[in-house]
Amino acid sequence: MAELFARHRATLEAAVAATRSRGYWSPYPELPSGKIYGESAKAEAEAAFAGLLGGLFPLDQESAGEPVGEEVSPWTGQKLGIRYPRGAVEPLVAAAERARLAWAKASVETRVGIALEILARLNRDSFLIANAVQHTTGQSFVMAFQAGGPHAQDRGLEAVALAFEETTRFPARARWEKPQGKAAPIVLDKEWRLVPRGIGLVIGCSTFPTWNGYPGLFASLVTGNAVIVKPHPMAVLPLALTVRTARRVLREEGFDPDLVQLAVDTAAAPITKELAQHPAVGIVDFTGSPAFGRWLRDNLRDKLLFTEEAGTNPVVIQGCRDLEATCANLAFSLALYSGQMCTAPQNLFVPATGIATPGGTIGFEAFASALAAAIDGLLADPARASAVLGTIQNPATLERIAKARSLGRVVRESAPLPGAEPARTATPLLVELEAEEEPAYCSEWFGPIAFLIRCRDAEDALERAARTARTRGAITAALWATDEAFVARAADAFAQAGAPLSIGLEGPIYVNQAAAFSDFHVTGANPAGNATFVDPAFVAGRFRLCGIRRLATG
Amino acid sequence: MAELFARHRATLEAAVAATRSRGYWSPYPELPSGKIYGESAKAEAEAAFAGLLGGLFPLDQESAGEPVGEEVSPWTGQKLGIRYPRGAVEPLVAAAERARLAWAKASVETRVGIALEILARLNRDSFLIANAVQHTTGQSFVMAFQAGGPHAQDRGLEAVALAFEETTRFPARARWEKPQGKAAPIVLDKEWRLVPRGIGLVIGCSTFPTWNGYPGLFASLVTGNAVIVKPHPMAVLPLALTVRTARRVLREEGFDPDLVQLAVDTAAAPITKELAQHPAVGIVDFTGSPAFGRWLRDNLRDKLLFTEEAGTNPVVIQGCRDLEATCANLAFSLALYSGQMCTAPQNLFVPATGIATPGGTIGFEAFASALAAAIDGLLADPARASAVLGTIQNPATLERIAKARSLGRVVRESAPLPGAEPARTATPLLVELEAEEEPAYCSEWFGPIAFLIRCRDAEDALERAARTARTRGAITAALWATDEAFVARAADAFAQAGAPLSIGLEGPIYVNQAAAFSDFHVTGANPAGNATFVDPAFVAGRFRLCGIRRLATG
Repeated sequence: MAELFARHRATLEAAVAATRSRGYWSPYPELPSGKIYGESAKAEAEAAFAGLLGGLFPLDQESAGEPVGEEVSPWTGQKLGIRYPRGAVEPLVAAAERARLAWAKASVETRVGIALEILARLNRDSFLIANAVQHTTGQSFVMAFQAGGPHAQDRGLEAVALAFEETTRFPARARWEKPQGKAAPIVLDKEWRLVPRGIGLVIGCSTFPTWNGYPGLFASLVTGNAVIVKPHPMAVLPLALTVRTARRVLREEGFDPDLVQLAVDTAAAPITKELAQHPAVGIVDFTGSPAFGRWLRDNLRDKLLFTEEAGTNPVVIQGCRDLEATCANLAFSLALYSGQMCTAPQNLFVPATGIATPGGTIGFEAFASALAAAIDGLLADPARASAVLGTIQNPATLERIAKARSLGRVVRESAPLPGAEPARTATPLLVELEAEEEPAYCSEWFGPIAFLIRCRDAEDALERAARTARTRGAITAALWATDEAFVARAADAFAQAGAPLSIGLEGPIYVNQAAAFSDFHVTGANPAGNATFVDPAFVAGRFRLCGIRRLATG
Repeated sequence: MAELFARHRATLEAAVAATRSRGYWSPYPELPSGKIYGESAKAEAEAAFAGLLGGLFPLDQESAGEPVGEEVSPWTGQKLGIRYPRGAVEPLVAAAERARLAWAKASVETRVGIALEILARLNRDSFLIANAVQHTTGQSFVMAFQAGGPHAQDRGLEAVALAFEETTRFPARARWEKPQGKAAPIVLDKEWRLVPRGIGLVIGCSTFPTWNGYPGLFASLVTGNAVIVKPHPMAVLPLALTVRTARRVLREEGFDPDLVQLAVDTAAAPITKELAQHPAVGIVDFTGSPAFGRWLRDNLRDKLLFTEEAGTNPVVIQGCRDLEATCANLAFSLALYSGQMCTAPQNLFVPATGIATPGGTIGFEAFASALAAAIDGLLADPARASAVLGTIQNPATLERIAKARSLGRVVRESAPLPGAEPARTATPLLVELEAEEEPAYCSEWFGPIAFLIRCRDAEDALERAARTARTRGAITAALWATDEAFVARAADAFAQAGAPLSIGLEGPIYVNQAAAFSDFHVTGANPAGNATFVDPAFVAGRFRLCGIRRLATG
């Protein structure tokens, strides 16, 4: 077991250093390239994925009744037909309870070595994970590879690095020697044991099951807890592959594989609430809707609860140094995965007085037209459009688009991508609203829906953007501005609102992107979620230290 | 402001080092000695204390209506007669809200420097604090000095050290440079702002108002929050003196003193629940009864809640190397401050088969007699007895003693300390119970009440002790044993129960004592509380980081 730690030690040390320097770093190449992952990797993954379709997923867990599986590919409209062991609360908890004591007693190095080996194998299997992510979330293949594979592994590794730091922060033993004047000192020999919370429950989402699931999974596991992974019924496969890999490594290393279990349920018979409320579950990691987040926050007691919910991510445009580059960048952010990212912009606050550019002031209408044109241009080539948009994961999103259309003047119409059938697609909808129409834009409109909000001026735009971020939640904010004093005010305002701000982006870097080891994802400082990927608070409470002290004698 | 940081920098660095080495360390001398604190310090403090009695406490806060004060000295039975500004929720919150933005924007060094200056002045005023603690909590003078003065300051400093580490853990700025193959790299300049939670509420207790109050106060303050200190109506003065000192330093350094406010209420018109539920309060630090802790845990939403409640601290005695030394040590632990410590033992699990000693096995009855005799011996000298016992803080404790008497055979009777009147005193009550009588001993009996529990054998004693610690809570556990295999099993069992264990104590070191920088106080791993003094989890969530990133150009 120390062998795995030694094998991955350089990666661990580099990861710890990266979390401290916050510069760019990743050990997992993001390019889906045969040169990197092996020339046969892509074809083998496609074959492996095809082999899973329509069958019983090979996992060494008991099924509580008939195996279940409801996944449908948004690309093909076909059921995947994969059936998984059906999860039932008491057997899952009992198995985790049986497994966890030996794990809690293992050394930090043992747990970290196993976690790093799991990540290394997940990285090796990135092509298969990409297929699984693509046909459950509806992302394009390249995005499914990057966000579902290497970038998710980065986030998992970041959690391992923080957990390693927290669990080794204090010495395991110390001598305490208190002077007593002329008398002999009092001498105590002390040691501290790591006491995990118990069971960590990871509740997966339907759009980024691995990227959002890995931080909690690895943070709980490395700090000594057993983990139950409860995927969204529509996005099971990426997490099933993950759990299978984790169980294999655990078994190879002599641990009970039930330290990581998959808990599959159905939309008709969900078990998430019962699992989350079980007394043996000490930690809950949730990514998903504010409605279910609210339920968890209202109903869980005496547990650690980490949530990543949603916000109304604002954009403020006071001016820009290059209108075309700005519109191109923003258009891509709106179109990427059809706005189904918790980081995608929604509310674009634009001054009615126009936007400062090197070529003079551009009016509100002109900016709206330029942005719409940039989206059209981005999506003009069908293959490129498909790669950017991916598909619509949930049919409910199409209904939401229809509803949003009626809110105001449609600046850019949403439509299916021509020729994309049977894939479920929708291009970005842009709707113009007046600043006063806050009820319309002050909640999340998940999907390819954005509002161009006509504000009195730039100050009004900033005030509304920061206030709604603070009160309604925001996971990102974006700013384009030419007035440096305005930039400074905006930085203050968004920081106070807990909304991470991107300023003046152009070229191939987007507000939607949050890089592991550098960008903290979700601040916890507004209603968009209470947890950050990955800060010390995300890790520190998952275990406690219990002291044992003894009078030193002889 | 950087001047204060520079002045106290050596103390800070030593404190940080101490939290990492976990050996003995303290910058605040615990001896109430004129040689250390100044030959006139004691007399001046007595005069200052006398000058406060019967008057309006000098504090620059508005009173919402008539000033209030209900404190009564358990030593004299007399009202202190000190009146404090009456606290009202909305004005307190509004003042904190006005004050906090400038504080959040100040540098870490500024906040830490101010916190260390506050602690230095509190240390200088230890004699006055000792008088205040003595005549509110009813502790003896020496204990009031040590626990209420230097040891409390140690805990505050420990919180400052951890908060300093957490707030400086990551760089304030970084350049992120992502290679793009043959193309130019993407370069972002990033910075991170500290975003405090808002207002931290510290709910003080009646027995250790400073020791239990300082960690939360200083952790919230140094991480950029405003703090409202809500003392127990019967123990206001120690925290009023603390708040006064904090406000003075803040004002001298150009900050709004309302960053630290005192919120005094009355038993008849409490404001704690309303304060704790106010949306602007983001953090609540509570020390007190499990009943109120439960209310907070059940009713607070979307806030950080840190609790130190209570447990049924167990002792297991399998054997000892010196019966007299063991009984003397345990007797002192039971008698110290009349058992009114959250760390005092309550349930003594003793094998019916007797205890192994070098002189042979000692039967249950003989051990009970030896322990009772040790208590009698400890309290034989009235002056020494008074210094050990102090007084009974709350009359309800006397009723509890009366009730406990009827639970089983009284091994040692509790009685007032002869000649102590008008002080309210009670010596330790020892009651014998059968192991099966769990309903009798499985809740906290606060005060000088302990149970000698007749167990089948040592294994039975350990099983019951660890199980009740895990299920009912324990802040400490103690063990005397001669069988090393038994010691190892006990260490495992108590660690799993989250009960810090002291083994084989003899001489002037007691299970009740938790040393800052070394002993983590309360694990959070059983129902005795959810927070630890002072671990990273106690500090990390009190602020968040919000990123600002900008495309590097030119």
